[in-house]
Amino acid sequence: MTSQQLYEQYTAQMRKIADVKYAQAVLQWDQETYLPSGGAAARGQQMATLSEIAHQLFADEKLGVLLQELSGADELTEKQQRNVALTLEDYQKNKRYTPVFVRELAEVTSRCYHTWIEARKQNDFRVFESSLGELIRLKKEEARVLEFEQHPYDALLNEFEKGATVAWLDTLFDELQQPLKQLLSAIMKCPQPDDRFLKQHFDKDSQWRFGLEMLKQIGFDFEAGRQDLSPHPFTTSFNTGDVRVTTRIDEHDFTSMTWSCLHEGGHALYEQGLPSDQYGLPLGEYCSLGIHESQSRFWENCIGRDQAFIEYNIPLITRFFPQLKEVGAKPLFGAVNKVQPSLVRTEADELTYHFHVMIRYSLEKKLIEGSLDVKDIPSFWNEAYKNLLGVDVPDDRKGCLQDIHWSHGSFGYFPTYSLGSLYAAQFFTAVQKQTPGLAQQIARGDYSAVHLWLKTNVYQYGRTYTSNELCNKITGEPLQLKYFLQYLTDKYKAVYHF
Amino acid sequence: MTSQQLYEQYTAQMRKIADVKYAQAVLQWDQETYLPSGGAAARGQQMATLSEIAHQLFADEKLGVLLQELSGADELTEKQQRNVALTLEDYQKNKRYTPVFVRELAEVTSRCYHTWIEARKQNDFRVFESSLGELIRLKKEEARVLEFEQHPYDALLNEFEKGATVAWLDTLFDELQQPLKQLLSAIMKCPQPDDRFLKQHFDKDSQWRFGLEMLKQIGFDFEAGRQDLSPHPFTTSFNTGDVRVTTRIDEHDFTSMTWSCLHEGGHALYEQGLPSDQYGLPLGEYCSLGIHESQSRFWENCIGRDQAFIEYNIPLITRFFPQLKEVGAKPLFGAVNKVQPSLVRTEADELTYHFHVMIRYSLEKKLIEGSLDVKDIPSFWNEAYKNLLGVDVPDDRKGCLQDIHWSHGSFGYFPTYSLGSLYAAQFFTAVQKQTPGLAQQIARGDYSAVHLWLKTNVYQYGRTYTSNELCNKITGEPLQLKYFLQYLTDKYKAVYHF
Repeated sequence: MTSQQLYEQYTAQMRKIADVKYAQAVLQWDQETYLPSGGAAARGQQMATLSEIAHQLFADEKLGVLLQELSGADELTEKQQRNVALTLEDYQKNKRYTPVFVRELAEVTSRCYHTWIEARKQNDFRVFESSLGELIRLKKEEARVLEFEQHPYDALLNEFEKGATVAWLDTLFDELQQPLKQLLSAIMKCPQPDDRFLKQHFDKDSQWRFGLEMLKQIGFDFEAGRQDLSPHPFTTSFNTGDVRVTTRIDEHDFTSMTWSCLHEGGHALYEQGLPSDQYGLPLGEYCSLGIHESQSRFWENCIGRDQAFIEYNIPLITRFFPQLKEVGAKPLFGAVNKVQPSLVRTEADELTYHFHVMIRYSLEKKLIEGSLDVKDIPSFWNEAYKNLLGVDVPDDRKGCLQDIHWSHGSFGYFPTYSLGSLYAAQFFTAVQKQTPGLAQQIARGDYSAVHLWLKTNVYQYGRTYTSNELCNKITGEPLQLKYFLQYLTDKYKAVYHF
Repeated sequence: MTSQQLYEQYTAQMRKIADVKYAQAVLQWDQETYLPSGGAAARGQQMATLSEIAHQLFADEKLGVLLQELSGADELTEKQQRNVALTLEDYQKNKRYTPVFVRELAEVTSRCYHTWIEARKQNDFRVFESSLGELIRLKKEEARVLEFEQHPYDALLNEFEKGATVAWLDTLFDELQQPLKQLLSAIMKCPQPDDRFLKQHFDKDSQWRFGLEMLKQIGFDFEAGRQDLSPHPFTTSFNTGDVRVTTRIDEHDFTSMTWSCLHEGGHALYEQGLPSDQYGLPLGEYCSLGIHESQSRFWENCIGRDQAFIEYNIPLITRFFPQLKEVGAKPLFGAVNKVQPSLVRTEADELTYHFHVMIRYSLEKKLIEGSLDVKDIPSFWNEAYKNLLGVDVPDDRKGCLQDIHWSHGSFGYFPTYSLGSLYAAQFFTAVQKQTPGLAQQIARGDYSAVHLWLKTNVYQYGRTYTSNELCNKITGEPLQLKYFLQYLTDKYKAVYHF
């Protein structure tokens, strides 16, 4: 059999596995958007079964043999070789999981999701505690199974951001914390922009339609995706032709839904832009969660919270929300960039956001290394918020129950949010440098040059490179804090005039 | 190993298979409600993969051995024995399908669905012709694989209605046709009820909310299901706790959505009422399509088009639709029971409906036996409508492209619609006989006795009996035409006064 024939066999098997995984993703999307409560238990089982089947298909010895044969073959194209190498890596990692463990993890995760929902309803972490404890036990087990050199949390981090380690992140967050604190202190000495006009009543239906407009404006393709409502906004993809975002609407807050749409829209543009001919293969997948997040932050913040964006959109905004008619672009720009230490990560400003991440990072690290008990999460959380953000956490719902991530089984995920901001700023600096006249284009709502840059530099590569390799390739440097700090400083000088 | 331990193994495998099948059903539900067009191709593949996996799991030799061992065991309860016997029957039938055939069938069916959508858009059967031809080729192949004694169509019928044959249906439809023609001719001599008030403008949102009220009224459990919109209304179930119906809204027709809700609601009550502890097992499944349809007709027609139902609901109707305020119960009862030969099956009255079924039955029979070419479907269709219903078919959309069934791969399905009406009338007669004071209860919107009767006599048995066995057991007789003919005659005498 020729290498190309073997490669065909390999892609057929990978596509079959992808079919099962994406089917599971459809069930998960449905679980978070439309599932009636009576269907929850069976749905958990159904998802666990699909997860187990996908695992078994990927653990097939024949696939292992095929990958070994292919990884020696030199008649493959460079892309094909890369697919094979990455799949072999995944294969060897996946082999470490037993079917029993995969099933248990899926079932406990599903239970966690439902107890998290219930705990939020009752505003009581203790409702969530025991199933979360189960999950953390499994996550520690997972770290042992995956192996690590220095810290068990490294193994989990690596699942989301290949190459990231506790050692690297400890340094990164240390170096970030000081300048952010200084910037915050400078800001806090200035008068705050007035943002009371953002907290009026904003009609649900108008917000919904405005959100769709925002998605359309940044280039979301509604023939290849849709938006729905869910308690926690997310993006999911079943193939490049079916990428779905969700949002939530707060009738008393104009900003919440609007920038969430831009955020999820940025994720979605990435998924819609991945090479569709690589369905089921590593080169058809996103690079890392940090890079994925860079795409959402890019559109939400670098573009969406920029003065030019606000100015361009003022006519649209006042058409949908006549109650903002008296507010000009400049005050709106100020209001949506107001810095104010607060309780909820997803609604935090671009500066204090990273303190939220740092708290979760250190908490997860401790849970996984075993230096913090699950029952002590609320007190650790509340103290950390007092120390770093200076806020008092009134209850669990606004505290340690606010994020969906743990109930999804995601530990090691949060740090990628900060990495996303850093990458976004570095990419935004690069695209500006490389594109003469970009500011003028953006000022008239023309994002074609941005789309082209992202397609050429980010989307098309899939998982070809690690995040830092990609960053190096397209910006000429590894990840640097300075771009993000410069970006923040420029923005807040424009808002606060310090 | 004890029989009970073997039985446990058997149920575990069956539940796993059910998980995959229901996952596929979720993907199908999504395909018909929310899927963006760009996702269609990959979705077809994904569903085909799940179908193939379910087939492979069910074709597992180990399951065969287990079933053989269990079918000899006498330590099983009667229900357990029945599950094993029915599963063995299914197993042996399923063994006849090769994985390649299953996959091809799923892919061609998915393609058919999309070309049917496109053909309807273009109002041109020829767009659908070639993929439908492919599908019919596969269906003939399927009939051969499944084996049959007298007619290849028997094999396909049997998939939907165990025990039904061309010989039996030919007689049944022959005996039905004459009295229906006589009844129609008596009706056509009378003045028609005025139904112009049904064809006003009815606000989409009011219709949607009214439809939900109708579902609630007949006992649909919204904690265990939901309603959405789709081009063609259907019911699907992912377990007894998650049963979904869909509807469509015609803003110029009050009846279309209303009675479609009652129809799908009847299906849904059956699915919600099946024994949930039998998930994945035959006794947790519906009896046959004919019996399923009897449940929808029961609520749509026997209950929903009865004068008492209309009278009880007049206040609700006029609250949602003030434009009907001047119309009384009696004229509304007449209008929604107006008999008029027409083009579209789903909107036909209860009498001429069966002519629509007879046409499809004879057409499918001919396609499967090879005495009619796919390209000749439109002309056969149009002629048959002229002959039997006396109407001229203006185009394919209102003609042979009107039904979704072929695009779902369902041949042999249509006859079960007529069987449903017949069973419904026989059951309705039985529940009335067995329940003193039922008419008074129904007249005040109290369906508790009806629910109890259906639960006790139909829902709880799942697939324990064949449709005719069930009918015998709960009404004391096999299926009889007389109950349906009496029911129709009574109704139309009340409407037309002949």
